[in-house]
Amino acid sequence: MSSTAKTVSELAAHVGGQAFGDANLVVNRVAGLETAGEGEIAYVEDEKFFAAANASKASCVIAPVGSDLKALCRIEVKKPKLAFALIAEILHPAKKRAPEIHPSSDIAPSAKVGDQVFIGAFVCVGENSSVGDGTQIRAGAKIGDNVRVGRDCVIHPNVFLEDGVTIGDRVILHAGVVIGTDGFGYVRDEHSHHKFPQIGTVVIEEDVELGANTCVDRAALGSTRIGRGTKIDNMVHVGHNCDIGERVVIAAQTGISGSVTIEDDCIIGGQVGFGDHIRVQSGAVIGSKAGILPGKIVRPGVWWGIPIQPLDEYKRLNAHVSRLPQVRRELKELTERVKTLENELRQNGESDRD
Amino acid sequence: MSSTAKTVSELAAHVGGQAFGDANLVVNRVAGLETAGEGEIAYVEDEKFFAAANASKASCVIAPVGSDLKALCRIEVKKPKLAFALIAEILHPAKKRAPEIHPSSDIAPSAKVGDQVFIGAFVCVGENSSVGDGTQIRAGAKIGDNVRVGRDCVIHPNVFLEDGVTIGDRVILHAGVVIGTDGFGYVRDEHSHHKFPQIGTVVIEEDVELGANTCVDRAALGSTRIGRGTKIDNMVHVGHNCDIGERVVIAAQTGISGSVTIEDDCIIGGQVGFGDHIRVQSGAVIGSKAGILPGKIVRPGVWWGIPIQPLDEYKRLNAHVSRLPQVRRELKELTERVKTLENELRQNGESDRD
Amino acid sequence: MSSTAKTVSELAAHVGGQAFGDANLVVNRVAGLETAGEGEIAYVEDEKFFAAANASKASCVIAPVGSDLKALCRIEVKKPKLAFALIAEILHPAKKRAPEIHPSSDIAPSAKVGDQVFIGAFVCVGENSSVGDGTQIRAGAKIGDNVRVGRDCVIHPNVFLEDGVTIGDRVILHAGVVIGTDGFGYVRDEHSHHKFPQIGTVVIEEDVELGANTCVDRAALGSTRIGRGTKIDNMVHVGHNCDIGERVVIAAQTGISGSVTIEDDCIIGGQVGFGDHIRVQSGAVIGSKAGILPGKIVRPGVWWGIPIQPLDEYKRLNAHVSRLPQVRRELKELTERVKTLENELRQNGESDRD
Repeated sequence: MSSTAKTVSELAAHVGGQAFGDANLVVNRVAGLETAGEGEIAYVEDEKFFAAANASKASCVIAPVGSDLKALCRIEVKKPKLAFALIAEILHPAKKRAPEIHPSSDIAPSAKVGDQVFIGAFVCVGENSSVGDGTQIRAGAKIGDNVRVGRDCVIHPNVFLEDGVTIGDRVILHAGVVIGTDGFGYVRDEHSHHKFPQIGTVVIEEDVELGANTCVDRAALGSTRIGRGTKIDNMVHVGHNCDIGERVVIAAQTGISGSVTIEDDCIIGGQVGFGDHIRVQSGAVIGSKAGILPGKIVRPGVWWGIPIQPLDEYKRLNAHVSRLPQVRRELKELTERVKTLENELRQNGESDRD
Repeated sequence: MSSTAKTVSELAAHVGGQAFGDANLVVNRVAGLETAGEGEIAYVEDEKFFAAANASKASCVIAPVGSDLKALCRIEVKKPKLAFALIAEILHPAKKRAPEIHPSSDIAPSAKVGDQVFIGAFVCVGENSSVGDGTQIRAGAKIGDNVRVGRDCVIHPNVFLEDGVTIGDRVILHAGVVIGTDGFGYVRDEHSHHKFPQIGTVVIEEDVELGANTCVDRAALGSTRIGRGTKIDNMVHVGHNCDIGERVVIAAQTGISGSVTIEDDCIIGGQVGFGDHIRVQSGAVIGSKAGILPGKIVRPGVWWGIPIQPLDEYKRLNAHVSRLPQVRRELKELTERVKTLENELRQNGESDRD
Repeated sequence: MSSTAKTVSELAAHVGGQAFGDANLVVNRVAGLETAGEGEIAYVEDEKFFAAANASKASCVIAPVGSDLKALCRIEVKKPKLAFALIAEILHPAKKRAPEIHPSSDIAPSAKVGDQVFIGAFVCVGENSSVGDGTQIRAGAKIGDNVRVGRDCVIHPNVFLEDGVTIGDRVILHAGVVIGTDGFGYVRDEHSHHKFPQIGTVVIEEDVELGANTCVDRAALGSTRIGRGTKIDNMVHVGHNCDIGERVVIAAQTGISGSVTIEDDCIIGGQVGFGDHIRVQSGAVIGSKAGILPGKIVRPGVWWGIPIQPLDEYKRLNAHVSRLPQVRRELKELTERVKTLENELRQNGESDRD
């Protein structure tokens, strides 16, 4: 029994569910219904997959309350997928590297490194920067001067944090993330572009996770902020002075121009493009590949398209467009009928005059 | 004569073509028709460029069989561009760094490094990882624990391979590639997002090439796979649990959500966006900037637009849309004619009643 | 008074403006109107913000000539935002790291490093490469063989410059930039893809700035070029053999396929997609998210949409599309009216025959 293995009854208690069958069975791993075997726990949420759940060889299945499953051993809860995620957190805790300051790392004398910190090979930590207790900074990450990294963060390989940025507790920055580079702003004279000052900073609040190669620019003046609990996917661009709220979800390759505000709990699809100075109100959901014009206020609801429209309107308009060939056909036929009418009427007129 | 220089007859033999003119001429380099000079070989495939080929100062020109070119020295083959590529492989072999383990590199004691391997400065290779014979791992690349890298690979600078991923033989990973980071999946409760387990892995099969800063996420459960001979451009996002087949081509900045299957030999343009759980069947070609809704099955053929349509339909519909102003004009005119008819008919009726 | 602090009269002289009020006041920093306080200078360009300017606590405000502002101390100029940028250049000069060759760096014996150069930790500079006077190469940047980097450049952390590329003077490459990787070109035979030769190079001219994680591919044959004074945002893809002119501005996540020419002074939005062999003529402005078909010539003017159209046409067509529901309603009504006419006419005919 591995150190993280648990009995079914322990897991059921952890997620506030009810165990059925042999509650002393030991579970080591989570798995999908199809591949799960002995010592593994799977979940089923949708009735569509009840047949698969019945056929599964998992030692235990997490299922909705009152579901009529044959699984001998199961945990019934209101939200099986959530319970599965919570159980996975226990069975598969994130890797915790043993505290170490790698001899090859380059840590400025004035930097403050907390307790139980892992600093990998070829890491730099600059002057007056601080790294909180329990944080792991993996190989090749570069941390500039006057940076504050919180507790229990994981800074993955080759991340770069520019001077002066602030990273909250329990933040995860995946490989290649770049935070705090100059925003993209210039003022033109007759000859060339002059950089608009990019002397603000970036604040990443606690429990944020940023995907690989995502870039967050420093503010021109003031701060770019990413709020508590927000999750951002790979290769997202966050421009200068953006203010992203709490628990926002942003999928891969979305681009956010300068000075955009996204309020708490919004959900943003992949490859979305934001013009500058947009405000997305709390509760808005923006579909993948949408495009939003500068300065727009996006109200709660589901939005889609370029430029964005309410999803219903988008669908209705798309349906109208797809019927355009028919419209043109109908118009042509009607034109023929009108022509016929005109001819008849002219003939009638002529026959009247006869 | 450099070590890779060849005579025209050697090159003709290599590509199964027929040499005309002085087959003993020595060729050192490939070049374009316009810039080629002595010792250089160019190609022409399209009749449009025959004039340029006739004007070229290349020592030798590769041309289609039976083409009526004046070039004194030429190689005739069925597919000149392919022959040009094959000849370039010989004249300009990829740089092969002399075997070396750079003293600054950090290689775990339990890692296994094959023969004739180049490991550059500031490279990490983690516990229980293996590097196949002849592979080159360039400066700053970071390889986690339990990673398997095949033979004759080139891992360019600052690549990151997360724990547990598998890289086949002859794979080329360009600078900044990130493989094996957590997929983007969360389950929400009332308060926050919980990470859906991302404990699967990534398998990159042999002869794959991935462009700079491209990211491939590990599977939630199971594997993300990129099949043999597939070529992917810069900054492409491949989500968790994707199954990309063999010899697929994917252009820059395309984003592929989780659990997408792309079958063998598909061609995908740049900036395409895939919703999750899509299946693209073998032989499909998807145009740049297309958007595909989740769960869709994409049949063989050429697809275009957001959401995707067969290219023919897309073009036809676009033509209809572009004629909308005319439709509205016609509708207005027709309305006038109907009004006239109604008036006439009413007057007739009145005059009848007179 | 910090070393960069200036009096209002010094700043006014620097930007060719006229000082009003206490011209001996000392200014240390630039700031926004709302947050500025003592020792700070703000600007106002648009009348919309005159009220904010009047309410500002800035020590000095830069304002348009003849603007009726209450600010006791102000500098009047024709272009306040430009003056603000020029003043920021003086008050907040870019960080200049003291000359140093970090002992951990790996510099080839044949490399030539100029005077007053900063080379950070874990940097590589390859054989026969040169670094110009005053250039800063920050931690973890990797420079290949035969690379030429000009004077007074800033190469930020984890940048990669592949063998043979040329970087002009005063170039800024933000973290994670990749220059000179193979272009994306293959020729297929029955079995697999063969790499089309990617043996050209990249030339980045002086005063160019490239955003974080941006990638510029080497030419197949010849050079990929980015012209003097051009500014490119984060995560832009520049394909092989592109020729980008001078003073071009390209926003984040735009993708440029092979052999595209963008002439001087063009402005390109974010997430734009270019097919290959396009020529964008000087003076063209391309809106964000636009898509341009291969081979197209884009004339001066403002362009929008997929595929691109002149902005006016795009808007007009969009307006037509949004009125499609009305068109269909009108068509339906008109059809009813025609039917009525037909019935009436038939009845008339019948009654005539009576």
